[in-house]
Amino acid sequence: MNATPTASETPKPSDSYVQSFARGLDVIRSFSASAPAQTLSEVAARTGLTRAGARRILLTLQTLGYVHSDGRLFQLTPRILDLGFAYLSSMPIWDLAEPMMETLVDRVHESCSAAVLDGLDVVYVLRVHTHKIMSTNLGVGSRLPAFWTSMGRVLLAALPEDELRARMATLPRERYTRHTVVDDAGLLDRVAEARAQGWCLVDQELEEGLISIAAPLRNRAGQTVAALNISGQANRTSAQAMQAQFLPVLLDTAQAISRTLGTRGR
Amino acid sequence: MNATPTASETPKPSDSYVQSFARGLDVIRSFSASAPAQTLSEVAARTGLTRAGARRILLTLQTLGYVHSDGRLFQLTPRILDLGFAYLSSMPIWDLAEPMMETLVDRVHESCSAAVLDGLDVVYVLRVHTHKIMSTNLGVGSRLPAFWTSMGRVLLAALPEDELRARMATLPRERYTRHTVVDDAGLLDRVAEARAQGWCLVDQELEEGLISIAAPLRNRAGQTVAALNISGQANRTSAQAMQAQFLPVLLDTAQAISRTLGTRGR
Repeated sequence: MNATPTASETPKPSDSYVQSFARGLDVIRSFSASAPAQTLSEVAARTGLTRAGARRILLTLQTLGYVHSDGRLFQLTPRILDLGFAYLSSMPIWDLAEPMMETLVDRVHESCSAAVLDGLDVVYVLRVHTHKIMSTNLGVGSRLPAFWTSMGRVLLAALPEDELRARMATLPRERYTRHTVVDDAGLLDRVAEARAQGWCLVDQELEEGLISIAAPLRNRAGQTVAALNISGQANRTSAQAMQAQFLPVLLDTAQAISRTLGTRGR
Repeated sequence: MNATPTASETPKPSDSYVQSFARGLDVIRSFSASAPAQTLSEVAARTGLTRAGARRILLTLQTLGYVHSDGRLFQLTPRILDLGFAYLSSMPIWDLAEPMMETLVDRVHESCSAAVLDGLDVVYVLRVHTHKIMSTNLGVGSRLPAFWTSMGRVLLAALPEDELRARMATLPRERYTRHTVVDDAGLLDRVAEARAQGWCLVDQELEEGLISIAAPLRNRAGQTVAALNISGQANRTSAQAMQAQFLPVLLDTAQAISRTLGTRGR
């Protein structure tokens, strides 16, 4: 998994790059919460395509049932989920992980998630909520900056040192809260600590009040393929209390899930 | 939302159809639980592409970060979730619906889901599980045949009569259980009943032991845009008991969610 070029950096067409395909994926991604229904002109503007180019892609998507149009506005259809979510169904790990995560949530009464690393982000692949008003509302496919999340630090800790430093070199820094560590030395320390102890706790570095604790999920070859976390609220449970109460059961569950993972999985 | 052509029926290239894009989407869909990691030859065989064609698409996906390769085997990366996520986040309804569904689950102690109609299927777009061993394990993006699910019948009931009959004409029939209704007249009766009463209960027609009850979610224009259900187990709760205990709270929640829906949403 490497950092991915943005649209402006995408390669020129060649015999190993299909630009019309790449542009089509850009059109799909141009739909969002702030642009759920778009006109042809809006899609063209958002993707940098010509109107003619955007029209061909939209009509192709419409022919295949991925886009619906009332003649003026285009919207994605639920068939789009066949693309993204084919990924989830291709990871048999989660079928086995989910009931174990549910048992964990029943014991700790906090939400539990699994995520993988993609460039500088963690991407949620499974979430089991506890039914509390304050439960966080991040769905599958959501992204958070890896360097300031417990799952991210656990996953970054598994990278070779040169790869870790290469990613840090491109890292945008933001002081999300007064606790956020932003300097290279501080971040490398935190990642090294996660590597040494085999788990990681992040105390309100990404959001005031949010504490989370994570452990790696490893395949039979010992490679870290994902991370598992429990997240809680500082006003209910201190960092110390989370470590004391949740760490043992988190590590137990992570090991139990890891034992179910094949060597071919990621 | 119309039924979608399969690969063998896809149109020929023209100035309004981008075949390389359509082929690229086929490559993404070729990955599945039974084929999570594929060689170039496997992808070519599954999609009907030449090896050279499959290679160009795979390398494009790799350049964009959607596919990872160890040199021999190709796998989708979590970035692929961005595509499905574009659809889900383009439906702002779910942010508001989720906490209301969690409250419902807390009251009834059964799982609650929301789904939309796509051709002959319902597609799950949001699920809130109750933490029980027997909770069903269908994730977001999963499909079930609309004519034999409570959400499906509620959604089909909102179609114009000619559209409903057109879909029935292409409907594959399967006797899933001894309770499954398979004849046209019986199915039309059930859909008409859902339309007349404004909700629907399906008692073990798709799977022995599975009962579910559904209500429509309507936008401000009164159009049915999705359905909400509660599913339960026949050995815990009879159909009569589900109707008595769950229907009032299901209808309350569906109306509360409907009130939050704009006229532009689907």
